[in-house]
Amino acid sequence: MRVGFVGLGAMGVPMAVNLVKAGHAVRGFDVRAGAADALVAAGGQAAASAADAARDAELLWLMVVSGEQAEAVLFEHGAAAALPRGAIVGMGCTQAPAHAARTAARLADMGLAVLDAPVSGGTKGANAAALTIMCSAAADVLERARPVLGAMGSRVFDCGRDAGMGSTAKMINQLLCGVHIAAAAEAMHVAERAGVSTATMHEIIGVSAGNSWMWGDRGPRMMQDDPAVTSAVDIFVKDLGIVLGEGRVLKAGLPLSAAAMQMFLAASGLGHGAADDSQVIRAYRALNGAGARNK
Amino acid sequence: MRVGFVGLGAMGVPMAVNLVKAGHAVRGFDVRAGAADALVAAGGQAAASAADAARDAELLWLMVVSGEQAEAVLFEHGAAAALPRGAIVGMGCTQAPAHAARTAARLADMGLAVLDAPVSGGTKGANAAALTIMCSAAADVLERARPVLGAMGSRVFDCGRDAGMGSTAKMINQLLCGVHIAAAAEAMHVAERAGVSTATMHEIIGVSAGNSWMWGDRGPRMMQDDPAVTSAVDIFVKDLGIVLGEGRVLKAGLPLSAAAMQMFLAASGLGHGAADDSQVIRAYRALNGAGARNK
Repeated sequence: MRVGFVGLGAMGVPMAVNLVKAGHAVRGFDVRAGAADALVAAGGQAAASAADAARDAELLWLMVVSGEQAEAVLFEHGAAAALPRGAIVGMGCTQAPAHAARTAARLADMGLAVLDAPVSGGTKGANAAALTIMCSAAADVLERARPVLGAMGSRVFDCGRDAGMGSTAKMINQLLCGVHIAAAAEAMHVAERAGVSTATMHEIIGVSAGNSWMWGDRGPRMMQDDPAVTSAVDIFVKDLGIVLGEGRVLKAGLPLSAAAMQMFLAASGLGHGAADDSQVIRAYRALNGAGARNK
Repeated sequence: MRVGFVGLGAMGVPMAVNLVKAGHAVRGFDVRAGAADALVAAGGQAAASAADAARDAELLWLMVVSGEQAEAVLFEHGAAAALPRGAIVGMGCTQAPAHAARTAARLADMGLAVLDAPVSGGTKGANAAALTIMCSAAADVLERARPVLGAMGSRVFDCGRDAGMGSTAKMINQLLCGVHIAAAAEAMHVAERAGVSTATMHEIIGVSAGNSWMWGDRGPRMMQDDPAVTSAVDIFVKDLGIVLGEGRVLKAGLPLSAAAMQMFLAASGLGHGAADDSQVIRAYRALNGAGARNK
């Protein structure tokens, strides 16, 4: 397929390159100079603008960082207007479900098809063409897009017909991720306070019913004072913000998400917003005092 | 070793039988008539009372349901007084760390050694001699007890020297279990409200960073209206109660545990205390209304 690709960051570059490898004709754009170099080296083309990437494309994939950026690319920078009627806009960015639905409605009014398709799996999954892609779209649109989706991801989930349902699935994953990281911090903090070795605790939970993907991944960094940043505290301030915002839309109180959000917010307020998200544990230490307490 | 065993329930029977299989001389007691039959059939002996099980034992293992029951067995029913000086009391029950420490101090005053050793792995682990056992004890006591521990469990963790540290490790596992079940219910509830298939959601999260052991285990039962009871809502009212009580002892605010506790309490208050713990999702439906809400 002829694919326009906007957003050539750490995720976008390997995804666009995988599209080229699968035989698609890819024209990529990013506001940062040189961002398209790797794509061109792989056999793709560099577009002069977002609108230029969209021209003649059968599918325009947006791998920007937010729903707001997707909207700007589409409507302010003219990408939507440049697309041929009937083309598909694939929104790969993480955004609020309500935002995805709003953008989809505007695109439908312009005669364009929409695929709400946030991804997970990080740069590792992007490089290996092994992303999980959570899709919602009209059934025929999803079928038309499958060759593109299959070139970037190994698991393509059909979450429903309405734009926003794919984003809802992604948001639910972020809800669990955020709560599990905060829960891991709460658990590690109890171990610290009680004077139980956090390393032993990490090993015990890893083989117990309290285990989570996040415990395995973030746990070791939680035990370090200043770990490498894999994903920042402020990312979860954003993502849990989306969760709680959608809770307002759905009129649904979400007590655990709300409690987890306060801990990430506190960590950010303490000046750790750019630290690795495992460092939400610093909010617990600030709240209750650091170090073991003898009973 | 000569082992006295008190508490021949669903966990206790296979654990005691595994001790016999490993060559230990086991004398078991339970208040329920006939509870020792399986132990006797396996080659163990039935004791007439808890004190009778303790007499001449090198190690007395308590597999009762609470710290209060352990205390009653030891001090009201005379098991501690019946033990030879220097014998080990292994407390396999789940109890508050502070409670374990208090009982240990009383036993030490009587010249007895104490092994704080709660287990996890359920009846499946008990049957397969594959329990996880979280121990704290004096180093020599732990070494003396290893032949007994190794006959019941496949993973024996050394959590520290002080009685209560093993119970703290178990409690931290329960903290994570309780928060993860409530988080799974919160996530499933969002899917229901947003009209996204919970079955699809369960599959997506199973391969995503939001995964947890509890999501995999409780998720399917959460989607059923009246699932079989594997572990009841009120068990987590008890276990998160222990967590929050220990938070008071440690002077540590635990916002996620507190929020999860409210949901289990609400589920119990709604009349679902004896239902499977996956049914904490009913508290979410009561809180926000059941069924999908169109935005």
